Amino acid sequence: MIAVFGHLNPDTDAVTAALVYANLLSRQGTPAVAYRLGELNFETAFVLREAGVAAPELLSSLPDGHDVALVDHNESAQSLSGLKKLSVTHVVDHHRLGDLETSQPATLRFDPVGCTATILLRLHLEANLPVEPTDARLLLSAVLSDTLHFRSPTTTPADREAAAFLAPIAGVADVTTYALSMFAAKSDLGDTPASTLLKMDYKVFPFGAQQAGAQKWGLGVIETTNPGYVFGRQAELLAAMQAEKAAAGLDGLILSVVDILNETNHTLVAGESEAEVMRAAFGATVQGGMADLGHRISRKKQIVPALEAHFAP
Amino acid sequence: MIAVFGHLNPDTDAVTAALVYANLLSRQGTPAVAYRLGELNFETAFVLREAGVAAPELLSSLPDGHDVALVDHNESAQSLSGLKKLSVTHVVDHHRLGDLETSQPATLRFDPVGCTATILLRLHLEANLPVEPTDARLLLSAVLSDTLHFRSPTTTPADREAAAFLAPIAGVADVTTYALSMFAAKSDLGDTPASTLLKMDYKVFPFGAQQAGAQKWGLGVIETTNPGYVFGRQAELLAAMQAEKAAAGLDGLILSVVDILNETNHTLVAGESEAEVMRAAFGATVQGGMADLGHRISRKKQIVPALEAHFAP
Repeated sequence: MIAVFGHLNPDTDAVTAALVYANLLSRQGTPAVAYRLGELNFETAFVLREAGVAAPELLSSLPDGHDVALVDHNESAQSLSGLKKLSVTHVVDHHRLGDLETSQPATLRFDPVGCTATILLRLHLEANLPVEPTDARLLLSAVLSDTLHFRSPTTTPADREAAAFLAPIAGVADVTTYALSMFAAKSDLGDTPASTLLKMDYKVFPFGAQQAGAQKWGLGVIETTNPGYVFGRQAELLAAMQAEKAAAGLDGLILSVVDILNETNHTLVAGESEAEVMRAAFGATVQGGMADLGHRISRKKQIVPALEAHFAP
Repeated sequence: MIAVFGHLNPDTDAVTAALVYANLLSRQGTPAVAYRLGELNFETAFVLREAGVAAPELLSSLPDGHDVALVDHNESAQSLSGLKKLSVTHVVDHHRLGDLETSQPATLRFDPVGCTATILLRLHLEANLPVEPTDARLLLSAVLSDTLHFRSPTTTPADREAAAFLAPIAGVADVTTYALSMFAAKSDLGDTPASTLLKMDYKVFPFGAQQAGAQKWGLGVIETTNPGYVFGRQAELLAAMQAEKAAAGLDGLILSVVDILNETNHTLVAGESEAEVMRAAFGATVQGGMADLGHRISRKKQIVPALEAHFAP
């Protein structure tokens, strides 16, 4: 039985990809079960609730040598702890290839598209398997989520085609209204503790030389239709960021507040050293602990590559 | 323009995969050119001659940042020197994933099948593109070569299906006769220098811990229908092996003589330390500088994993 899971601090693409890929593998004769590596965010909870699908079980560890399939990630820092001791038999991902190695030949499928869901649709079509209506709804939701309803620069024509193909199977007549209701659910943050807000969409990246001199940065993102709510909690968030930076032994930590509808990014910095890097890497102005990153709304395509280039040996 | 190439010391799968994938990418609107990273072996030269195809150009270096597509390999030790400074945009491979990283999301396709050719056939079918007759002949040859006409334990049902699908398109009416003529060409080693025989199908693998304590081994293979010819040159080969081991700073070097028709493996060892490892890792008897590895005829599936386990920290 293969355990299928997306990255830590899962988002809608990570959770739905695990569910749909586990179902696809099982339908193809390879028994598989979906898991998640963290709490659902508000958007994903909304998506699963609307689809009538139970959340996959939370997974915290597996015995050495257990077969696993990774979706929507491949780097060990974003995966189950002890990944190097597990047997990775399958990967479906749309990120750059990081430190993954496999002990045996495996099934790997990476395409440079906007979300894992688009690749999963291709796998169905290539296998001549119909996408089940519930899976179509999960995949459509993931496309809309990861591409911010096609606003993100990570969007490719294949993602738009995937959404157009999936919507009628999913029974979603008005995709725009559905996307807005997903984003509203994501933005309804209520009294969520600041430490939780920080970690909702949060990944740790190594930058620079692999050995001595490597930098470990935490990059959080809050995509919202209501950025004013987040800015109103800046003091709390700053305290949570500084606590996390110290606790995790990070060299830097930033939290990007992405205004989905206006496509802007105002990034909170944990301290002056991060502010310096924002100025040097992005030419950003930094005021009141907040860097104006303009229209750079994609961590993957616009934030990580600039920081990689900045820290390159 | 993407440069497409297989591994150093190319075999039939590496050379034909570069040719066919470069053609497929070009047909799909991504201009690509095939290269090879070394001299053709006798089998590959026979295959290209019979197919009426010119050998791809020899490649020794590329400018930093050049786009490349890797076929039939992914580890930097088996690739163009300076790979880490090139931009890997595509990989099609059937080996375990090694130390490859990509700076950007890329198109990666790894399937655990017997040869790269089987994956390339899938890519044609998935794209609804007919396989051109010459490409079908190249792919069929690669399937027969890498699986030793379905004798190797690396053979999967998909490889047999691929050959059955390709043979009529290639115009090869009698696959068994064609395979035997390929193997005869491969075994007609004439007065090839011992140093060339050693390197015809030769790869360097790191074993054990990544940092301190890592072992670098050279693993050569001669697949032949005439092993007596090779054994008759054992003294010369031993001298070539010891010279290569010293020149390349290797911790170990072995040369497996695989009898294709009888499916046996007698492996020449460069010295007593390799003999010890053959006994410990395979329980082999070693006599006269030759280890009897029984029916272990696949380096990928039967030799490398046992050495990896032997040297694991």
